[in-house]
Amino acid sequence: MSAENSQENRPVILTGDRTTGPLHLGHYVGSLKNRVALQETHEQFLLLADAQALTDNAHDPEKVRRNVMEVALDYLAVGIDPQKSFICVQSLLPALAELTMLYLNFVTVARLERNPTVKDEIRLRGFERDIPAGFLCYPVAQAVDITAFRATLVPVGEDQAPMIEQSNEVVRRINRQAGRDVLPEARALIPNVGRLPGVDGKAKMSKSQGNAIALSASADEISQAVRMMYTDPNHLRASDPGTVEGNVVFSYLDAFGTDRAAVEELKAHYRRGGLGDMKVKRRLEDILQALLGPIRERRAALAQDPGYVLSVLRDGTRKARERTQQTFEDVREALGLFRL
Amino acid sequence: MSAENSQENRPVILTGDRTTGPLHLGHYVGSLKNRVALQETHEQFLLLADAQALTDNAHDPEKVRRNVMEVALDYLAVGIDPQKSFICVQSLLPALAELTMLYLNFVTVARLERNPTVKDEIRLRGFERDIPAGFLCYPVAQAVDITAFRATLVPVGEDQAPMIEQSNEVVRRINRQAGRDVLPEARALIPNVGRLPGVDGKAKMSKSQGNAIALSASADEISQAVRMMYTDPNHLRASDPGTVEGNVVFSYLDAFGTDRAAVEELKAHYRRGGLGDMKVKRRLEDILQALLGPIRERRAALAQDPGYVLSVLRDGTRKARERTQQTFEDVREALGLFRL
Repeated sequence: MSAENSQENRPVILTGDRTTGPLHLGHYVGSLKNRVALQETHEQFLLLADAQALTDNAHDPEKVRRNVMEVALDYLAVGIDPQKSFICVQSLLPALAELTMLYLNFVTVARLERNPTVKDEIRLRGFERDIPAGFLCYPVAQAVDITAFRATLVPVGEDQAPMIEQSNEVVRRINRQAGRDVLPEARALIPNVGRLPGVDGKAKMSKSQGNAIALSASADEISQAVRMMYTDPNHLRASDPGTVEGNVVFSYLDAFGTDRAAVEELKAHYRRGGLGDMKVKRRLEDILQALLGPIRERRAALAQDPGYVLSVLRDGTRKARERTQQTFEDVREALGLFRL
Repeated sequence: MSAENSQENRPVILTGDRTTGPLHLGHYVGSLKNRVALQETHEQFLLLADAQALTDNAHDPEKVRRNVMEVALDYLAVGIDPQKSFICVQSLLPALAELTMLYLNFVTVARLERNPTVKDEIRLRGFERDIPAGFLCYPVAQAVDITAFRATLVPVGEDQAPMIEQSNEVVRRINRQAGRDVLPEARALIPNVGRLPGVDGKAKMSKSQGNAIALSASADEISQAVRMMYTDPNHLRASDPGTVEGNVVFSYLDAFGTDRAAVEELKAHYRRGGLGDMKVKRRLEDILQALLGPIRERRAALAQDPGYVLSVLRDGTRKARERTQQTFEDVREALGLFRL
């Protein structure tokens, strides 16, 4: 453990991913990059959320299991440092399940059904009334994830903010019942980057939509994805003026171009005409190859050493067990539950 | 541990009580007496269901905590032998919470809402849509209780039979997903005794209705309860013929009288007239005092020795932890979840 991690007064961040597939560039822009920075200044727990993934993948536990390692590889490949961040496996933390059973008594079914994120996802997944009970309850499990680690900061997209509010509601109820602040409230840490669109121009990059570039993508896959990328459908000849807004190639240049001035110069050129899609795409491809090449190489090297990755998960999960177990004991004590 | 308990081939029984109040004569007739007999021939786990009690008592965890000991005292006082039965505390068994989180993914919300017992109790408790999520989920937690102990027999009242059916439904889903029978199905063991009415003549004896005689009732409390007991409201004079049906005193004589012929003789006398309520009540009181006196004395002696009671709970809970943890591991393995 590094000296930094033993600093007790660093604010605690809880973040993580459902283990349903390898991560992609959308995750990189939206969260991973941020986490690599945050681990320098915060105590950061990264939860491999396999238990949550099962709430709508109970029919395919093998996929959920396999992707625990895939996501762990993605984390390490992008620069998550196990000396600075704790990577842990959700389903191996019994206190999370125990706290969830407890918290479920402090939330009504009506309240869960009103949760906008649950509502959206029920619609998205076509669940209707056949929603698995575990899926209805998952905002409570998320409140547990946050509070069990005593996290006060939760990096989430804007659409996830209601989850934090729901978590704080549970916290206030339990604190009121306990008669003291046994659990801290948390606040959302909303990144100031926009969401990365899919390569097809759709609002969200997503593996299931087939419009994602995986962090483990090969050079050819990257090349092909950029070639197929949605641009300005009315920009037929290089000499025509083109539109930058909604043009995925430029969205990506905004997200990944490190030379801001050069990107602005390209945009101006494209707008006034005389800059062909192929040329802009070549520029983007160079940037993405330069970004993903080293990630892919590190990832491949790590994949050759599963023993090391497992030891990282073992250490992180051990640390997470201590923390979450302590919170569970504290809550039991505060509510005055039976002890032996 | 006695030699009997190490016999591996005895069928497993799971039973228990919510820890919301001390037990009463209704429990004695309906289940406790039966459990004392069953422990001779079965491996029996008695669950002090404090976690389940919290699903509708989250506002009063102190009551739930206090009654863990009260119910344990009742068990030991009526003759549950910790060398033959395992008494364990539900909220101290993490595998139960972990399995519940897993099972919740195999049951839909619609199915839980259709559960007749849940429906009845929602009505009874006036919950409507403000039902706590934990309460909606408790049939799943019960399925876990049953299966985690690998119980194949569950002594329940007739009204609880749908719970066993729901448990078996979950079992079949998990077995189908696992591709093998990792969990056994269970069947209800419905006692051939009727339900004991309250002393006021209401169908069910219940502490909250104030019509119960506690197993710890003092001689005076028993005396008073029998004196106030509902009989035949039209039986005004001893010389009048009286009605035995719906007459609580006779229901109790049926339940507790050991001399069947004498009870039948009393009934005939009461029916043809010439037998006063006071006289029948005195007979019942003698029987109840003889039954409850030794139970009360043993209970009082045990209450003086909380260290012993705690050691019983510690041993039972340890054994229960082993068993339930093993089941959780088996289910994880069968579903192919991630391991470290």
